[in-house]
Amino acid sequence: MWYENRVTQDLSIKYPIIQAGMAGGVTTPELVAAVSNAGGLGTLGAGYMSPEQTRVSIKKIKQLTNKPFGVNLFIPETPDISEEEIDKANEWLQPFREELNISERPKVKKPTASLFKEQIEIIIEEQVPVCSFTFGIPPKETVQQLKERNSIVIGTATTVKEAIANEENGLDMVVVQGSEAGGHRGTFIGSFEEAMIGTMALIPQTVDHVDIPVIAAGGIMDGRGILAAMMLGAQAVQMGTAFVTSVESGAKKPHKEAILNSNEDQTVVTSTFSGKPARGIRNEFITKMTRHEKYLPKYPIQNTLTTSIRNEAAKQNRPEWMSLWCGQNPRLSKPVSAGEIISDLLYQIDDIINTSRKGWS
Amino acid sequence: MWYENRVTQDLSIKYPIIQAGMAGGVTTPELVAAVSNAGGLGTLGAGYMSPEQTRVSIKKIKQLTNKPFGVNLFIPETPDISEEEIDKANEWLQPFREELNISERPKVKKPTASLFKEQIEIIIEEQVPVCSFTFGIPPKETVQQLKERNSIVIGTATTVKEAIANEENGLDMVVVQGSEAGGHRGTFIGSFEEAMIGTMALIPQTVDHVDIPVIAAGGIMDGRGILAAMMLGAQAVQMGTAFVTSVESGAKKPHKEAILNSNEDQTVVTSTFSGKPARGIRNEFITKMTRHEKYLPKYPIQNTLTTSIRNEAAKQNRPEWMSLWCGQNPRLSKPVSAGEIISDLLYQIDDIINTSRKGWS
Repeated sequence: MWYENRVTQDLSIKYPIIQAGMAGGVTTPELVAAVSNAGGLGTLGAGYMSPEQTRVSIKKIKQLTNKPFGVNLFIPETPDISEEEIDKANEWLQPFREELNISERPKVKKPTASLFKEQIEIIIEEQVPVCSFTFGIPPKETVQQLKERNSIVIGTATTVKEAIANEENGLDMVVVQGSEAGGHRGTFIGSFEEAMIGTMALIPQTVDHVDIPVIAAGGIMDGRGILAAMMLGAQAVQMGTAFVTSVESGAKKPHKEAILNSNEDQTVVTSTFSGKPARGIRNEFITKMTRHEKYLPKYPIQNTLTTSIRNEAAKQNRPEWMSLWCGQNPRLSKPVSAGEIISDLLYQIDDIINTSRKGWS
Repeated sequence: MWYENRVTQDLSIKYPIIQAGMAGGVTTPELVAAVSNAGGLGTLGAGYMSPEQTRVSIKKIKQLTNKPFGVNLFIPETPDISEEEIDKANEWLQPFREELNISERPKVKKPTASLFKEQIEIIIEEQVPVCSFTFGIPPKETVQQLKERNSIVIGTATTVKEAIANEENGLDMVVVQGSEAGGHRGTFIGSFEEAMIGTMALIPQTVDHVDIPVIAAGGIMDGRGILAAMMLGAQAVQMGTAFVTSVESGAKKPHKEAILNSNEDQTVVTSTFSGKPARGIRNEFITKMTRHEKYLPKYPIQNTLTTSIRNEAAKQNRPEWMSLWCGQNPRLSKPVSAGEIISDLLYQIDDIINTSRKGWS
């Protein structure tokens, strides 16, 4: 069958469909379990989670499914940011805080790598079947440690060079993120602008240069995209935006609605929310903050500074100040359950395969 | 067979593979004829040609093939540009002219739409089987006129909205240009930045909103890309960069070599050469001129101002000052004949189909 390959075999899943480990509360245990129960691989986005939250969520997922699932972690970044930069950013953010009646300024702690280490320990203790990474490559020892405990380890790349670096560090598979993808860019070598390569171009070039399985991401929302990615040489797909609008997703209502009502030309890659480039739907926050973009503190500092604004804006139903992460294919989004998203695309794939088979004879 | 569909039927070609009508001397009559003789549709890029050159080239193509072929035209743009803008641009371009020993400054004529009208007359007189357009939509009367003479009329779109506009104006088919594509962006509604949509996302969204056949362009270089585009719902592909490096291509040697030696992350979209955004390989000209980009005269004025620089740079083998148009998939380029490019990809397609058929049973 079309879905039988090295990825489904190694991950012990039925369909080569991975739900992206989106951080920020989108990937509820219910969503992760629903995707895994439907034969794909659900992934908990633990990037912003505390060790305690990570453990509780993993335990919850295990209650909801006995199928394999993954946890996605961020490779830690510890940029040196001056007090002046933070003050400047706070000044620019003040008008939004005032509009939302946020009186307190967030405390910024110097980021460390200790959270990452604690998370890895939890992954190992909880025997999580799949661990994926973005924003860089995990140290070889971490990869080794996870592999020894029988976790499959998946990296993220946005260029051929980054995919090769993942392979060299021992990752089992690599998600290759095309420029269409919603949310944060995984770029970790060179500038993000240079690494804005469309999925159609990026997948075949990467497949030609690595031996580990390539998982295509970016602009894939349905059965057509899955088969297209496989024709390009990918052995699986990772879908993010498609699951943000699902019933089980923890995305805020205004976020879901914005995706469901957007067109392909309404997203933009912006660093204004987090200090790291990410694709989302253009709104007032982005428009007003873009002029300061170059001077904002880098990720994760800017992310900390805007957290209360984004949360409060969601509560007050003000999508114009929220980070509305979204890929370039929002016209194909649906407000249905994760199981229905997967059964719909399986139906579509069967249909295309049957039509193709006839045409190809 | 995989290649039998409405596009191949309506265009009377064997394979749904169109060689893009790239302007600037790339599409020699030999290239156009070679592609058509191999079962695809060769296209003469007549955008910058005088009526006389257009006619001579068409006659030459007819001597070399009895198969259908196309001619691509630019929808004329007549921006109002002040003398000051031109003087400023000339000042910025002066260092390049000096390095290349170019003493004369080009004369800038106010652009008119008369060339376009003369070209259309030639297309009709010469009974060219296929006429394609970019940079806008031809007037309904022109479309009608061409259709009455049995020419198939193909438009270009970079968003769903533009594809719908093409259909509404009576175009028979539409090339949908993803952000991966090399050369000029075809965008004619809204800003080009908003219309930088990856092929993987743009094709299915467009297919869902028009009834005319969609021809996928952008990042497609081989059999994998062709089958992927067809899975997404396209009925044909248009390939540009793949043919630039062919033996029959009229691209300058340094241009061909630059593509053959580039990676996916080395191109950029720039207006510095022509006043209109186009994707090419980053070089010194772009790096030095980007700071002035916003203030350069619009297309086609800036194009006229840089013509002698680009030509002379090619003669002196200085690729750093040439426009090295190239898509995001240069790693798949080959320095072989157009016929070999096509036979290679047909072989690849057969191979993928055979493997898929087995896997799908």
